[in-house]
Amino acid sequence: MAKPPVLTPQAEDFPRWYQDVINKAELADNGPVRGTMVIRPYAYAIWERMQSEVDQRIKAAGAQNAYFPLFIPQSYLTREAEHVEGFSPELAVVTVAGGKELEEPIVVRPTSETVIGEYMAKWIQSYRDLPLLLNQWANVVRWELRPRMFLRTTEFLWQEGHCAHASQSDAATYALRILDDVYADFMETELAMPVLRGRKTRRERFAGAINTLTCEAMMGDGKALQMGTSHELGQNFARAFDMTFLDAEGAQKLAWTTSWGVSTRMMGGLIMCHGDDAGLIVPPRIAATQVVVMVVRDDEGTVTPVAEQLVDELRASGVRCVLDGAVGTAFGRRATGWELKGVPVRIELGPRDVEAGQVTLVRRDRTGKEPVPLQAVAPGLPALLAEIQQSLFDTAAARREERTVTVESVDDAIVAAGDGFARVPFDLLGEAGEDRLAESSLTVRCVQRTDGTVPATDDESGLIATVARSY
Amino acid sequence: MAKPPVLTPQAEDFPRWYQDVINKAELADNGPVRGTMVIRPYAYAIWERMQSEVDQRIKAAGAQNAYFPLFIPQSYLTREAEHVEGFSPELAVVTVAGGKELEEPIVVRPTSETVIGEYMAKWIQSYRDLPLLLNQWANVVRWELRPRMFLRTTEFLWQEGHCAHASQSDAATYALRILDDVYADFMETELAMPVLRGRKTRRERFAGAINTLTCEAMMGDGKALQMGTSHELGQNFARAFDMTFLDAEGAQKLAWTTSWGVSTRMMGGLIMCHGDDAGLIVPPRIAATQVVVMVVRDDEGTVTPVAEQLVDELRASGVRCVLDGAVGTAFGRRATGWELKGVPVRIELGPRDVEAGQVTLVRRDRTGKEPVPLQAVAPGLPALLAEIQQSLFDTAAARREERTVTVESVDDAIVAAGDGFARVPFDLLGEAGEDRLAESSLTVRCVQRTDGTVPATDDESGLIATVARSY
Repeated sequence: MAKPPVLTPQAEDFPRWYQDVINKAELADNGPVRGTMVIRPYAYAIWERMQSEVDQRIKAAGAQNAYFPLFIPQSYLTREAEHVEGFSPELAVVTVAGGKELEEPIVVRPTSETVIGEYMAKWIQSYRDLPLLLNQWANVVRWELRPRMFLRTTEFLWQEGHCAHASQSDAATYALRILDDVYADFMETELAMPVLRGRKTRRERFAGAINTLTCEAMMGDGKALQMGTSHELGQNFARAFDMTFLDAEGAQKLAWTTSWGVSTRMMGGLIMCHGDDAGLIVPPRIAATQVVVMVVRDDEGTVTPVAEQLVDELRASGVRCVLDGAVGTAFGRRATGWELKGVPVRIELGPRDVEAGQVTLVRRDRTGKEPVPLQAVAPGLPALLAEIQQSLFDTAAARREERTVTVESVDDAIVAAGDGFARVPFDLLGEAGEDRLAESSLTVRCVQRTDGTVPATDDESGLIATVARSY
Repeated sequence: MAKPPVLTPQAEDFPRWYQDVINKAELADNGPVRGTMVIRPYAYAIWERMQSEVDQRIKAAGAQNAYFPLFIPQSYLTREAEHVEGFSPELAVVTVAGGKELEEPIVVRPTSETVIGEYMAKWIQSYRDLPLLLNQWANVVRWELRPRMFLRTTEFLWQEGHCAHASQSDAATYALRILDDVYADFMETELAMPVLRGRKTRRERFAGAINTLTCEAMMGDGKALQMGTSHELGQNFARAFDMTFLDAEGAQKLAWTTSWGVSTRMMGGLIMCHGDDAGLIVPPRIAATQVVVMVVRDDEGTVTPVAEQLVDELRASGVRCVLDGAVGTAFGRRATGWELKGVPVRIELGPRDVEAGQVTLVRRDRTGKEPVPLQAVAPGLPALLAEIQQSLFDTAAARREERTVTVESVDDAIVAAGDGFARVPFDLLGEAGEDRLAESSLTVRCVQRTDGTVPATDDESGLIATVARSY
């Protein structure tokens, strides 16, 4: 009789597979307060690498990090009408502090446009202060009715950029720069996840934005995940917070603002994009552990020293590597554990391997094992990791290609999007079409130009909508 | 008539000088909710370097980062009697979320012993799971009645380590290791701040601890600042959260826990330790900007290219360097601004300097200017920065030495601690002595062995107490 699988197979129940991976690979636990999450060390180490890579790109785009308070006076939220309407149902409110009822309730930030708007207005005097490009790494809270680990949690970790610009075109250019140079580049290069870049329809915009740009990825089950967004906020928040500046001619002007964010939700995307029935598969560039060197058995004590030396050599080659010398635990159980955690390369070393001067190398993204001469392992690993990175990207891109259908009617879009992405002319869809999609739990994920690029602000016709179910 | 000073002189009013530096150097603003703080980019960049340096040391000490929720069920806090008593007056409480009154109020974490205790209890099964060494970088909230920027804010940023150990001696050893190898080493090496390492008296312990170790620094006005603490929690939290493990003999045992933290309060310490009447002085190793190259004037356009090349050379030498080419703003005003911000080295370059093939170099920690041949600047800067780092440490150490008096009575301690640190035998002081100190707003900052080392858990006599006013 075959052993029962460690995880629910993806084909049987993809959402249960997802939960199983999170539990079994020790990525996260449910927090004690509904919808909150404990991020365990293995997942947190991947998040730290995500932060570092995104942060470098943010700094290269000229933004500076700062930190704004968690607590926002409730009155701030109400200053921008659509914003307060969008966020009110999700707010957590502090009413008691220091043992006393508060005079004005305090909101735990769901996002920081309002509080940052207040300070930018103080700091900006003249056109010389623009653009003011700020970012913060922070936790935010949105009360979730249907929480799902990493994807939709009551508290999540993110970065939120908040910028003020001198003109609408500066704002539009910067919002797109963040989408392209920071988010899409990070997702494709580091996470090996191909993303569609486009803009949201009016109905799907951020509360208070005049334009929302998005990166959308396809998960293993054909559904879409919004991976990150970049918003043009027009002058809505500038007006609400009186963010004015003197231009070069000495005239008083209202600023134009943008905001943009990616979050721990990307961990959910990573899991669902690359994972398989054996667990997570972490792309090498984002993996905190790229290689595990496993001592299979070591009855004579001859194997561990060789394994240790190999680990040293791999580290010297710049490979992030750990040793698994826990020979007291059954080999199969350990191997299954590393598979679950998605470490890209497993190197097995037993007494016979040592005698033969070789190792057994197992790629997490392929089946089969391969003998490799011991001396060739460390020199060859960096190139192998690059190959795995590319292969994961290619596999995800091929799946998206395969599961994307171009259609010419709303009805066909509804059928096609049951199993992947449907591309349909947006002119043909319109807002009435979006209502019909909603009845089938489908949404327009983004609209693009026919060549796949992001539409300019005034591009309104000849655009293609991608329709899908989504997380 | 002399120009009025930019800052209130330290000798006139040290606390006002501190507030002035924070405002004028654009380090932080008051947040909109009482006691909260906006950390502006220049200060945040220093905090990021602090985080990075502390984090490296934490990882070298074997702890892994994770993330636990901001929201804690109120009932968790009540499980450890001293802990809840210590924190209850400072709690911020969420009573409404998602538009509804909550059944159980939620506390915004003031510290995470309780929630982390709950999860460690789940994760720990056997002695093989120990030690479990976790850390998180997070924001915490303690409602402050007398807030002061960086030093005591309603919300602050910190790291909190939480560990479970198999025995009391393992716990004691690790708590001390964190104090020595992580905190004191970081503070002395990177912040150039000499610290006393010792243990807190029973009265000054963390709420729920059986032993609190501390690093204490002397500020520019002779007062003490607690820079970081490391606690042995005994089995108090393990008992409250049922954190048990099977030992090697198969017996059920209660774990021993430790916790330890440093926070954005260290920024306050940095300002008050090294600052002078001209502003902040940032030690080179922690400075986000180590050198500013200033174009004094550039009427002919000959200076800026030379300055730019110098910046490139400095960066190639590993120096963190910025160019100030804002010749449209008065030179004096710019120079004062860099002084305020405490950039360790200022390099001035004007048309005559370029002709003479030299620059004018100004050390922030010294008075006077020095001409240096242009070619010698980049090669010489790394050594100069190291010299400045050492000099700042030496200056702080000399001040502490000068303002520390050894006394033999409580009365003398009260007098001596008016202007610095008083060292007095702890046997002579006792708890009654501590009450008397409290009447004069003095506390025992820490007790040490006579050689300045941290007492072992059972060292109870022959110890020296350091008495001081404190922030």
